Amino acid sequence: MPMKLIIANKNYSSWSLRGWLALEAFGVPFEEVKLPLFTDTFYDTLAQYTPVKKVPVLVDGDLSVWDSLAIAEYVNETYLDGKGWPADRAARAVARATVAEMHCGYSAVRSAMPMNCRARRHVAIDDAVRKDIAAIDAIWGEKRLPYADQGEYLFGEFSLADVFFAPVVFRFVTYGVELSDAAKAYQQTMLAHPAMKRWLADALTETDVVEEDEAGEPI
Amino acid sequence: MPMKLIIANKNYSSWSLRGWLALEAFGVPFEEVKLPLFTDTFYDTLAQYTPVKKVPVLVDGDLSVWDSLAIAEYVNETYLDGKGWPADRAARAVARATVAEMHCGYSAVRSAMPMNCRARRHVAIDDAVRKDIAAIDAIWGEKRLPYADQGEYLFGEFSLADVFFAPVVFRFVTYGVELSDAAKAYQQTMLAHPAMKRWLADALTETDVVEEDEAGEPI
Repeated sequence: MPMKLIIANKNYSSWSLRGWLALEAFGVPFEEVKLPLFTDTFYDTLAQYTPVKKVPVLVDGDLSVWDSLAIAEYVNETYLDGKGWPADRAARAVARATVAEMHCGYSAVRSAMPMNCRARRHVAIDDAVRKDIAAIDAIWGEKRLPYADQGEYLFGEFSLADVFFAPVVFRFVTYGVELSDAAKAYQQTMLAHPAMKRWLADALTETDVVEEDEAGEPI
Repeated sequence: MPMKLIIANKNYSSWSLRGWLALEAFGVPFEEVKLPLFTDTFYDTLAQYTPVKKVPVLVDGDLSVWDSLAIAEYVNETYLDGKGWPADRAARAVARATVAEMHCGYSAVRSAMPMNCRARRHVAIDDAVRKDIAAIDAIWGEKRLPYADQGEYLFGEFSLADVFFAPVVFRFVTYGVELSDAAKAYQQTMLAHPAMKRWLADALTETDVVEEDEAGEPI
Protein backbone atom coordinates (compact mmCIF):
# COMPACT_ATOMS: atom_id res chain seq x y z
CA MET A 1 0.00 0.00 0.00
CA PRO A 2 1.53 3.33 -1.01
CA MET A 3 1.86 6.17 1.44
CA LYS A 4 -1.00 8.63 1.62
CA LEU A 5 -0.44 12.35 1.85
CA ILE A 6 -3.41 14.24 3.19
CA ILE A 7 -3.53 17.78 1.87
CA ALA A 8 -6.01 20.64 1.51
CA ASN A 9 -6.91 22.82 -1.52
CA LYS A 10 -3.95 23.28 -3.80
CA ASN A 11 -4.87 26.89 -4.49
CA TYR A 12 -4.67 27.97 -0.86
CA SER A 13 -2.77 25.48 1.28
CA SER A 14 0.86 26.53 1.42
CA TRP A 15 1.73 23.93 4.05
CA SER A 16 0.22 21.20 1.88
CA LEU A 17 2.42 22.27 -1.02
CA ARG A 18 5.53 21.68 1.08
CA GLY A 19 4.58 18.15 2.09
CA TRP A 20 3.50 17.33 -1.46
CA LEU A 21 6.69 18.66 -3.09
CA ALA A 22 8.87 16.78 -0.60
CA LEU A 23 7.49 13.62 -2.22
CA GLU A 24 6.53 14.63 -5.76
CA ALA A 25 9.68 16.55 -6.66
CA PHE A 26 11.85 13.58 -5.64
CA GLY A 27 9.72 10.97 -7.41
CA VAL A 28 8.60 9.20 -4.23
CA PRO A 29 5.33 7.33 -4.94
CA PHE A 30 2.31 8.35 -2.85
CA GLU A 31 -1.42 8.63 -3.03
CA GLU A 32 -2.76 12.15 -2.73
CA VAL A 33 -5.85 12.63 -0.57
CA LYS A 34 -7.24 16.11 -0.92
CA LEU A 35 -9.73 17.39 1.64
CA PRO A 36 -11.44 20.65 0.72
CA LEU A 37 -10.89 23.43 3.25
CA PHE A 38 -13.72 25.57 4.58
CA THR A 39 -16.16 22.67 4.67
CA ASP A 40 -18.01 21.24 7.67
CA THR A 41 -16.53 17.82 7.06
CA PHE A 42 -12.85 18.85 6.80
CA TYR A 43 -11.83 18.00 10.36
CA ASP A 44 -14.05 14.93 10.61
CA THR A 45 -12.54 13.45 7.46
CA LEU A 46 -9.04 14.41 8.56
CA ALA A 47 -9.62 12.59 11.84
CA GLN A 48 -9.98 9.34 9.86
CA TYR A 49 -6.31 9.61 8.91
CA THR A 50 -4.67 11.24 11.89
CA PRO A 51 -5.36 12.38 15.44
CA VAL A 52 -3.59 15.63 14.60
CA LYS A 53 -5.93 18.22 13.12
CA LYS A 54 -3.47 19.62 10.63
CA VAL A 55 -2.48 19.19 7.01
CA PRO A 56 -0.28 17.96 5.55
CA VAL A 57 -0.16 14.54 7.14
CA LEU A 58 1.84 11.68 5.73
CA VAL A 59 0.34 8.27 6.49
CA ASP A 60 2.89 5.50 6.00
CA GLY A 61 1.46 2.21 7.23
CA ASP A 62 0.69 2.64 10.92
CA LEU A 63 2.62 5.88 11.17
CA SER A 64 1.12 9.38 10.83
CA VAL A 65 3.72 12.11 10.45
CA TRP A 66 2.53 15.69 10.72
CA ASP A 67 4.34 19.01 10.31
CA SER A 68 5.90 19.75 6.94
CA LEU A 69 9.45 19.87 8.32
CA ALA A 70 9.13 16.55 10.12
CA ILE A 71 7.60 15.06 6.96
CA ALA A 72 10.57 16.36 4.95
CA GLU A 73 13.10 14.85 7.37
CA TYR A 74 11.17 11.56 7.41
CA VAL A 75 11.03 11.34 3.62
CA ASN A 76 14.71 12.30 3.41
CA GLU A 77 15.77 9.54 5.80
CA THR A 78 13.35 6.84 4.73
CA TYR A 79 13.01 7.26 0.97
CA LEU A 80 15.80 9.56 -0.25
CA ASP A 81 18.78 8.07 1.56
CA GLY A 82 19.66 11.54 2.80
CA LYS A 83 19.73 13.05 -0.70
CA GLY A 84 16.92 15.52 0.05
CA TRP A 85 19.45 17.90 1.58
CA PRO A 86 22.66 19.20 -0.02
CA ALA A 87 25.45 16.62 0.03
CA ASP A 88 28.03 19.02 1.46
CA ARG A 89 27.96 19.10 5.27
CA ALA A 90 28.30 22.88 5.57
CA ALA A 91 25.76 23.59 2.82
CA ARG A 92 23.38 21.14 4.49
CA ALA A 93 23.68 22.96 7.83
CA VAL A 94 23.03 26.33 6.20
CA ALA A 95 20.11 24.83 4.26
CA ARG A 96 18.54 23.49 7.44
CA ALA A 97 19.00 26.82 9.23
CA THR A 98 17.46 28.68 6.29
CA VAL A 99 14.53 26.27 6.23
CA ALA A 100 14.03 26.48 9.99
CA GLU A 101 13.63 30.24 9.63
CA MET A 102 11.17 29.85 6.75
CA HIS A 103 9.27 27.21 8.75
CA CYS A 104 8.72 29.56 11.71
CA GLY A 105 9.35 33.04 10.47
CA TYR A 106 8.59 35.64 7.83
CA SER A 107 5.21 36.03 9.46
CA ALA A 108 4.67 39.51 8.00
CA VAL A 109 4.83 38.21 4.43
CA ARG A 110 2.79 35.15 5.27
CA SER A 111 0.05 37.11 6.93
CA ALA A 112 -0.08 39.94 4.36
CA MET A 113 0.15 37.61 1.35
CA PRO A 114 -1.84 34.41 1.79
CA MET A 115 -1.15 31.85 -0.91
CA ASN A 116 -3.76 32.01 -3.65
CA CYS A 117 -2.29 30.71 -6.87
CA ARG A 118 -5.23 31.85 -9.01
CA ALA A 119 -5.36 35.47 -7.84
CA ARG A 120 -3.45 38.55 -9.00
CA ARG A 121 -3.60 41.50 -6.65
CA HIS A 122 -1.68 44.11 -4.71
CA VAL A 123 -1.58 44.64 -0.97
CA ALA A 124 -0.12 47.36 1.22
CA ILE A 125 3.54 46.65 1.97
CA ASP A 126 4.55 47.94 5.38
CA ASP A 127 8.05 47.93 6.88
CA ALA A 128 7.74 44.45 8.34
CA VAL A 129 6.63 42.97 5.01
CA ARG A 130 9.37 44.89 3.19
CA LYS A 131 11.97 43.50 5.60
CA ASP A 132 10.75 39.93 5.03
CA ILE A 133 10.79 40.41 1.26
CA ALA A 134 14.36 41.74 1.41
CA ALA A 135 15.49 38.76 3.51
CA ILE A 136 13.87 36.30 1.11
CA ASP A 137 15.29 38.16 -1.88
CA ALA A 138 18.77 37.76 -0.39
CA ILE A 139 18.26 34.02 0.07
CA TRP A 140 17.00 33.62 -3.50
CA GLY A 141 19.66 35.96 -4.87
CA GLU A 142 23.04 36.78 -3.39
CA LYS A 143 23.17 33.93 -0.85
CA ARG A 144 22.54 31.43 -3.64
CA LEU A 145 25.56 32.54 -5.65
CA PRO A 146 28.20 30.41 -3.84
CA TYR A 147 26.29 27.31 -4.99
CA ALA A 148 25.44 28.58 -8.48
CA ASP A 149 28.10 26.46 -10.19
CA GLN A 150 26.24 23.35 -8.99
CA GLY A 151 22.79 24.33 -10.21
CA GLU A 152 20.10 26.99 -10.30
CA TYR A 153 18.37 26.13 -7.04
CA LEU A 154 19.05 27.56 -3.56
CA PHE A 155 21.90 25.17 -2.83
CA GLY A 156 22.76 24.14 -6.38
CA GLU A 157 20.67 21.07 -7.14
CA PHE A 158 17.01 21.00 -6.14
CA SER A 159 16.74 20.21 -2.41
CA LEU A 160 14.29 20.31 0.47
CA ALA A 161 15.31 23.95 0.96
CA ASP A 162 13.54 24.79 -2.30
CA VAL A 163 10.50 22.87 -1.11
CA PHE A 164 10.12 25.22 1.84
CA PHE A 165 10.30 28.38 -0.25
CA ALA A 166 7.91 27.07 -2.93
CA PRO A 167 4.76 28.69 -1.49
CA VAL A 168 6.51 32.08 -1.42
CA VAL A 169 7.38 31.62 -5.10
CA PHE A 170 3.64 31.51 -5.85
CA ARG A 171 2.81 34.27 -3.34
CA PHE A 172 5.26 36.69 -4.95
CA VAL A 173 3.63 36.05 -8.35
CA THR A 174 0.14 36.63 -6.94
CA TYR A 175 1.08 39.90 -5.25
CA GLY A 176 3.43 41.14 -7.99
CA VAL A 177 6.38 41.47 -5.63
CA GLU A 178 9.41 43.05 -7.29
CA LEU A 179 12.65 41.19 -6.85
CA SER A 180 16.31 41.58 -7.69
CA ASP A 181 17.39 40.00 -10.96
CA ALA A 182 19.11 37.07 -9.22
CA ALA A 183 16.05 36.40 -7.05
CA LYS A 184 13.73 36.71 -10.04
CA ALA A 185 15.85 34.17 -11.91
CA TYR A 186 15.39 31.74 -9.02
CA GLN A 187 11.64 32.36 -9.00
CA GLN A 188 11.51 31.55 -12.73
CA THR A 189 13.56 28.38 -12.18
CA MET A 190 11.09 27.26 -9.53
CA LEU A 191 8.05 28.09 -11.67
CA ALA A 192 9.55 25.96 -14.45
CA HIS A 193 10.07 22.93 -12.19
CA PRO A 194 7.81 20.10 -13.43
CA ALA A 195 6.36 19.41 -9.97
CA MET A 196 5.59 23.11 -9.41
CA LYS A 197 3.89 23.24 -12.80
CA ARG A 198 1.78 20.19 -11.91
CA TRP A 199 0.72 21.75 -8.59
CA LEU A 200 -0.15 25.05 -10.26
CA ALA A 201 -2.14 23.36 -13.03
CA ASP A 202 -4.12 21.48 -10.38
CA ALA A 203 -4.66 24.66 -8.35
CA LEU A 204 -5.93 26.55 -11.37
CA THR A 205 -8.42 23.86 -12.32
CA GLU A 206 -9.53 22.90 -8.83
CA THR A 207 -13.27 22.31 -8.96
CA ASP A 208 -13.83 22.60 -5.22
CA VAL A 209 -13.45 26.34 -5.46
CA VAL A 210 -14.74 28.08 -2.38
CA GLU A 211 -16.61 31.33 -2.38
CA GLU A 212 -14.33 34.32 -2.39
CA ASP A 213 -14.92 37.88 -1.31
CA GLU A 214 -14.19 40.92 -3.48
CA ALA A 215 -10.50 40.77 -2.55
CA GLY A 216 -10.39 37.15 -3.69
CA GLU A 217 -10.08 35.69 -0.19
CA PRO A 218 -12.08 32.58 0.70
CA ILE A 219 -15.16 33.37 2.78
CA MET B 1 40.14 24.14 18.08
CA PRO B 2 36.91 23.15 19.79
CA MET B 3 33.58 24.40 18.54
CA LYS B 4 32.27 27.62 20.02
CA LEU B 5 28.64 28.05 21.01
CA ILE B 6 27.59 31.67 21.28
CA ILE B 7 24.77 32.12 23.77
CA ALA B 8 23.12 34.89 25.78
CA ASN B 9 22.25 35.11 29.49
CA LYS B 10 21.44 31.71 30.92
CA ASN B 11 18.68 33.13 33.10
CA TYR B 12 16.67 34.50 30.20
CA SER B 13 17.71 32.99 26.89
CA SER B 14 15.51 30.00 26.18
CA TRP B 15 16.86 29.56 22.66
CA SER B 16 20.42 29.51 24.00
CA LEU B 17 19.46 26.74 26.41
CA ARG B 18 18.40 24.54 23.49
CA GLY B 19 21.64 24.95 21.56
CA TRP B 20 23.68 24.46 24.74
CA LEU B 21 21.85 21.29 25.82
CA ALA B 22 22.15 19.78 22.34
CA LEU B 23 25.90 19.71 23.00
CA GLU B 24 26.26 19.53 26.79
CA ALA B 25 23.69 16.79 27.46
CA PHE B 26 25.37 14.53 24.92
CA GLY B 27 28.92 15.21 26.11
CA VAL B 28 30.05 16.96 22.92
CA PRO B 29 33.04 19.24 23.74
CA PHE B 30 32.59 22.95 23.04
CA GLU B 31 33.63 26.33 24.28
CA GLU B 32 30.82 28.45 25.65
CA VAL B 33 30.86 32.14 24.70
CA LYS B 34 28.27 34.07 26.65
CA LEU B 35 27.27 37.54 25.47
CA PRO B 36 25.14 39.51 27.92
CA LEU B 37 21.77 40.57 26.52
CA PHE B 38 20.43 44.10 26.86
CA THR B 39 23.84 45.68 26.35
CA ASP B 40 24.97 48.09 23.66
CA THR B 41 27.73 45.74 22.58
CA PHE B 42 25.62 42.57 22.21
CA TYR B 43 25.12 42.73 18.45
CA ASP B 44 28.57 44.11 17.71
CA THR B 45 30.23 41.28 19.59
CA LEU B 46 27.88 38.73 18.03
CA ALA B 47 28.86 40.01 14.59
CA GLN B 48 32.44 38.86 15.28
CA TYR B 49 31.20 35.27 15.26
CA THR B 50 28.39 35.26 12.76
CA PRO B 51 26.68 37.43 10.16
CA VAL B 52 23.35 36.28 11.63
CA LYS B 53 22.20 38.44 14.50
CA LYS B 54 20.76 35.65 16.59
CA VAL B 55 21.78 33.35 19.40
CA PRO B 56 22.54 30.55 19.69
CA VAL B 57 25.16 30.23 16.99
CA LEU B 58 27.45 27.24 16.70
CA VAL B 59 30.82 28.08 15.19
CA ASP B 60 32.61 24.96 13.94
CA GLY B 61 35.73 25.96 12.05
CA ASP B 62 34.62 28.08 9.09
CA LEU B 63 30.98 27.17 9.53
CA SER B 64 28.42 29.20 11.49
CA VAL B 65 25.16 27.35 12.13
CA TRP B 66 22.26 29.36 13.50
CA ASP B 67 18.77 28.34 14.61
CA SER B 68 18.47 25.87 17.45
CA LEU B 69 16.80 23.19 15.33
CA ALA B 70 19.43 23.37 12.59
CA ILE B 71 22.13 23.26 15.28
CA ALA B 72 20.49 20.16 16.77
CA GLU B 73 20.37 18.39 13.40
CA TYR B 74 23.97 19.40 12.67
CA VAL B 75 25.22 18.10 16.03
CA ASN B 76 23.17 14.93 15.59
CA GLU B 77 24.68 14.18 12.17
CA THR B 78 28.21 15.36 12.78
CA TYR B 79 28.93 14.41 16.39
CA LEU B 80 26.24 11.99 17.58
CA ASP B 81 26.11 9.60 14.63
CA GLY B 82 22.34 10.06 14.55
CA LYS B 83 21.89 9.07 18.21
CA GLY B 84 20.41 12.45 19.17
CA TRP B 85 17.00 11.28 17.98
CA PRO B 86 15.16 8.11 19.03
CA ALA B 87 16.54 5.01 17.32
CA ASP B 88 13.12 3.74 16.23
CA ARG B 89 12.06 5.20 12.87
CA ALA B 90 8.45 5.86 13.87
CA ALA B 91 9.40 7.34 17.25
CA ARG B 92 11.97 9.53 15.51
CA ALA B 93 9.34 10.88 13.09
CA VAL B 94 6.94 11.66 15.95
CA ALA B 95 9.80 13.25 17.92
CA ARG B 96 10.70 15.51 15.00
CA ALA B 97 7.06 16.51 14.48
CA THR B 98 6.68 17.26 18.19
CA VAL B 99 9.86 19.33 18.16
CA ALA B 100 8.84 21.20 15.00
CA GLU B 101 5.67 22.29 16.79
CA MET B 102 7.62 23.38 19.86
CA HIS B 103 10.11 25.20 17.64
CA CYS B 104 7.39 27.32 15.98
CA GLY B 105 4.37 27.09 18.19
CA TYR B 106 2.97 27.42 21.69
CA SER B 107 3.32 31.16 21.26
CA ALA B 108 0.75 31.94 23.96
CA VAL B 109 2.82 30.21 26.66
CA ARG B 110 6.04 31.64 25.32
CA SER B 111 4.75 35.17 25.29
CA ALA B 112 2.93 35.01 28.65
CA MET B 113 5.73 33.18 30.43
CA PRO B 114 9.19 34.40 29.41
CA MET B 115 12.00 32.21 30.71
CA ASN B 116 13.43 33.61 33.90
CA CYS B 117 14.98 30.82 35.93
CA ARG B 118 15.50 32.96 39.03
CA ALA B 119 11.98 34.35 39.33
CA ARG B 120 8.86 32.91 40.95
CA ARG B 121 5.63 34.56 39.97
CA HIS B 122 2.11 34.14 38.67
CA VAL B 123 0.60 35.52 35.50
CA ALA B 124 -2.93 35.62 34.13
CA ILE B 125 -3.71 32.44 32.23
CA ASP B 126 -6.13 33.04 29.37
CA ASP B 127 -7.70 30.42 27.12
CA ALA B 128 -4.84 30.42 24.63
CA VAL B 129 -2.25 29.89 27.37
CA ARG B 130 -4.44 27.20 28.96
CA LYS B 131 -4.69 25.39 25.62
CA ASP B 132 -0.90 25.47 25.16
CA ILE B 133 -0.35 24.18 28.70
CA ALA B 134 -2.80 21.32 28.09
CA ALA B 135 -1.04 20.36 24.85
CA ILE B 136 2.37 20.38 26.54
CA ASP B 137 1.00 18.47 29.52
CA ALA B 138 -0.22 15.76 27.11
CA ILE B 139 3.23 15.52 25.48
CA TRP B 140 4.95 15.28 28.86
CA GLY B 141 2.33 12.92 30.24
CA GLU B 142 0.05 10.60 28.30
CA LYS B 143 1.88 10.74 24.97
CA ARG B 144 5.11 9.73 26.72
CA LEU B 145 3.62 6.52 28.13
CA PRO B 146 4.18 4.29 25.03
CA TYR B 147 7.93 4.88 25.46
CA ALA B 148 8.00 4.69 29.26
CA ASP B 149 9.47 1.17 29.31
CA GLN B 150 12.59 2.58 27.62
CA GLY B 151 13.18 5.48 29.97
CA GLU B 152 11.71 8.49 31.73
CA TYR B 153 12.21 11.03 28.96
CA LEU B 154 9.75 12.00 26.19
CA PHE B 155 10.77 9.14 23.91
CA GLY B 156 12.35 6.85 26.49
CA GLU B 157 16.03 7.75 26.62
CA PHE B 158 17.06 11.40 26.66
CA SER B 159 16.88 12.82 23.12
CA LEU B 160 16.85 16.09 21.21
CA ALA B 161 13.09 16.19 21.83
CA ASP B 162 13.81 16.80 25.52
CA VAL B 163 16.24 19.53 24.56
CA PHE B 164 13.46 21.47 22.87
CA PHE B 165 11.10 21.30 25.83
CA ALA B 166 13.79 22.19 28.38
CA PRO B 167 13.00 25.92 28.51
CA VAL B 168 9.34 25.14 29.21
CA VAL B 169 10.44 22.93 32.10
CA PHE B 170 11.99 26.01 33.73
CA ARG B 171 9.12 28.30 32.70
CA PHE B 172 6.53 26.07 34.36
CA VAL B 173 8.55 26.17 37.60
CA THR B 174 8.84 29.96 37.48
CA TYR B 175 5.12 30.48 36.90
CA GLY B 176 3.93 27.66 39.18
CA VAL B 177 2.01 25.91 36.40
CA GLU B 178 0.01 22.94 37.67
CA LEU B 179 0.48 19.73 35.73
CA SER B 180 -0.89 16.21 35.64
CA ASP B 181 1.04 13.68 37.72
CA ALA B 182 2.66 12.10 34.66
CA ALA B 183 3.72 15.49 33.27
CA LYS B 184 5.00 16.57 36.68
CA ALA B 185 7.09 13.40 36.89
CA TYR B 186 8.67 14.30 33.55
CA GLN B 187 9.36 17.83 34.74
CA GLN B 188 11.14 16.42 37.82
CA THR B 189 13.16 14.04 35.64
CA MET B 190 14.31 16.97 33.51
CA LEU B 191 15.14 19.14 36.53
CA ALA B 192 17.30 16.29 37.87
CA HIS B 193 19.27 15.93 34.62
CA PRO B 194 22.92 16.88 35.29
CA ALA B 195 23.11 19.28 32.34
CA MET B 196 19.87 21.01 33.36
CA LYS B 197 21.24 21.37 36.90
CA ARG B 198 24.45 22.90 35.57
CA TRP B 199 22.53 25.40 33.44
CA LEU B 200 20.28 26.35 36.35
CA ALA B 201 23.21 26.77 38.74
CA ASP B 202 24.88 29.07 36.21
CA ALA B 203 21.65 31.03 35.68
CA LEU B 204 21.17 31.52 39.41
CA THR B 205 24.69 32.81 39.94
CA GLU B 206 25.01 34.84 36.76
CA THR B 207 26.82 38.05 37.63
CA ASP B 208 25.74 39.95 34.54
CA VAL B 209 22.30 40.39 36.02
CA VAL B 210 20.34 43.06 34.23
CA GLU B 211 18.04 45.52 35.92
CA GLU B 212 14.58 44.13 36.42
CA ASP B 213 11.26 45.87 36.89
CA GLU B 214 8.84 45.10 39.72
CA ALA B 215 7.49 42.09 37.87
CA GLY B 216 11.03 40.75 37.56
CA GLU B 217 11.31 41.40 33.83
CA PRO B 218 14.54 42.81 32.42
CA ILE B 219 14.31 46.52 31.67
